[in-house]
Amino acid sequence: MKTLLFDGSLHFSEKEMPRPASDEALIRVLMAGICNTDMEILKGYMGFQGVPGHEFVGEVVHCSLKQWIGKRVAGEINLACGTCEQCTRGLERHCLERKVLGISGKDGVFAEYITLPVKNLIAIPDGIPNKEAVFIEPLAAACEILEQIHIEPVHCVAVIGDGKLAQLIVRVLRLTGCRLAAVGKHRTKLSLIQKLGIETKLWTQPCDEKFDVVVEASGSTSGLLPAMDLLKPRGILILKSTINEDVKLNTTKLVIDEITAIGSRCGRSAPAVRLLLNRLIQVDDLISAVYPFDQALEAFKKAKETDTIKVLLEMRN
Amino acid sequence: MKTLLFDGSLHFSEKEMPRPASDEALIRVLMAGICNTDMEILKGYMGFQGVPGHEFVGEVVHCSLKQWIGKRVAGEINLACGTCEQCTRGLERHCLERKVLGISGKDGVFAEYITLPVKNLIAIPDGIPNKEAVFIEPLAAACEILEQIHIEPVHCVAVIGDGKLAQLIVRVLRLTGCRLAAVGKHRTKLSLIQKLGIETKLWTQPCDEKFDVVVEASGSTSGLLPAMDLLKPRGILILKSTINEDVKLNTTKLVIDEITAIGSRCGRSAPAVRLLLNRLIQVDDLISAVYPFDQALEAFKKAKETDTIKVLLEMRN
Repeated sequence: MKTLLFDGSLHFSEKEMPRPASDEALIRVLMAGICNTDMEILKGYMGFQGVPGHEFVGEVVHCSLKQWIGKRVAGEINLACGTCEQCTRGLERHCLERKVLGISGKDGVFAEYITLPVKNLIAIPDGIPNKEAVFIEPLAAACEILEQIHIEPVHCVAVIGDGKLAQLIVRVLRLTGCRLAAVGKHRTKLSLIQKLGIETKLWTQPCDEKFDVVVEASGSTSGLLPAMDLLKPRGILILKSTINEDVKLNTTKLVIDEITAIGSRCGRSAPAVRLLLNRLIQVDDLISAVYPFDQALEAFKKAKETDTIKVLLEMRN
Repeated sequence: MKTLLFDGSLHFSEKEMPRPASDEALIRVLMAGICNTDMEILKGYMGFQGVPGHEFVGEVVHCSLKQWIGKRVAGEINLACGTCEQCTRGLERHCLERKVLGISGKDGVFAEYITLPVKNLIAIPDGIPNKEAVFIEPLAAACEILEQIHIEPVHCVAVIGDGKLAQLIVRVLRLTGCRLAAVGKHRTKLSLIQKLGIETKLWTQPCDEKFDVVVEASGSTSGLLPAMDLLKPRGILILKSTINEDVKLNTTKLVIDEITAIGSRCGRSAPAVRLLLNRLIQVDDLISAVYPFDQALEAFKKAKETDTIKVLLEMRN
């Protein structure tokens, strides 16, 4: 089968079809999304080598549980051992032995076929087309914030960033009824947020207002200090950017203002599926381009362009 | 009156007696403690110039509320405006206009007399001698951790540091019944913690165990990375050190492991008073030396020595 391989450089490579273990399904990938994490992997993040990609929609073609065959699925990307301390606490996404689809120890979805444990399969309801279902994984990551903290309708919340993940985060957070502002670097991307009725500010604009919650989702180390500056005393800083880089920080500000900084990674899929199905979150305007799989290298170039938001790969024409 | 003044260098200076405003008390300082923050101020922390010092026991000599006169008191060190957003939320310690005794905008306790708003006075019960009462302020800062997070008896907790504040923190946290370990650099200081039945480790010893909660109270930027290494996924990092220095940090670890980092500063006095009065916290072994006020410069030298924990100043012999 055809795969996109990263082994220091990104290129197509023919590989053998993966063979599913007894507790796994074989899935034909229908559509895949390019995430910032994929771009970071190409810069060396996680030291990953193999087939990247973790946002996908597929069709189950083989599975010991027959009811899955032919079903459209997304997938929980963390492959947990099920027996370690974290797993037995119900924190499978933090399994100490985990592999992560297309990120750590497990080939990802930039391929014609993948395998995934049956327990990781997420059924996609008919009401959600492929182009939207491919957003289930990053939308779940946006919803994770609401699992971690209680955003009250009276809270003032700022999101730093206007890229792929930040766009989904503002869409999720506006559902809380909170006062929301987005701070970004790109007028075109910010304009999509403005259309949702959310106040936007360019990074360079001065801002006197202080916020109860600030979400740093810029995907860059440069977002951290501005995020901290926007916080009220006892405010909450949500950290979403995974960046292969150190940042210089004076932690004394965190101590004096008793800031709570919370790292936030993957979320559960069920809320993301519900929000898409009920059309509470719309994602059409976030799709900058759809490429056929054999033009994946061009798709990656497109994904790097400043005004690009989400680039999708269609595996079958 | 005699004061210890910091104006780039630390020296004695004669000053006029402070005049209490109508809502303030005039207090004769009886005893004062030297804190790490005082040492940081001498290095330029907060850009403070004036009389430092914020840990004290005093006797009220003038007050419009006559019942305070002659009473032994400690003091809430944050002088709040009472009207800003933070104050009206009940977060006076985070008042946006606050002055802080001996730290910011208000002369401190290394002086024969101070003034303090009456609402900041804390009555000291007879059962607590001066040498213990002078610990009310730092002990309240240790108790602040329990106001911010719920440490369960089943939690595994590590404290990084073995100095003045870390010593009080381990004393407070052991009351929760949690499994507690202290990691420090100084055998002599760690031995005091060992005597409380708490496991101690030298910084250089390898540690395979991971903790639910890690308190960084080393007073040094070098404690942050070891503290992060000791955390379980979804663990809580309490930041206690206020240091006039940047630290290099890869925040991606916080994101991937969904760590919560919480800055922690001053606490309320009432729990500290109760714990001292009920002898649940003992502090006698933490007093390395007591100097008369006119030997305060020698006291500061002593406070800087490696094996020193708390140095006290006695204002009247």
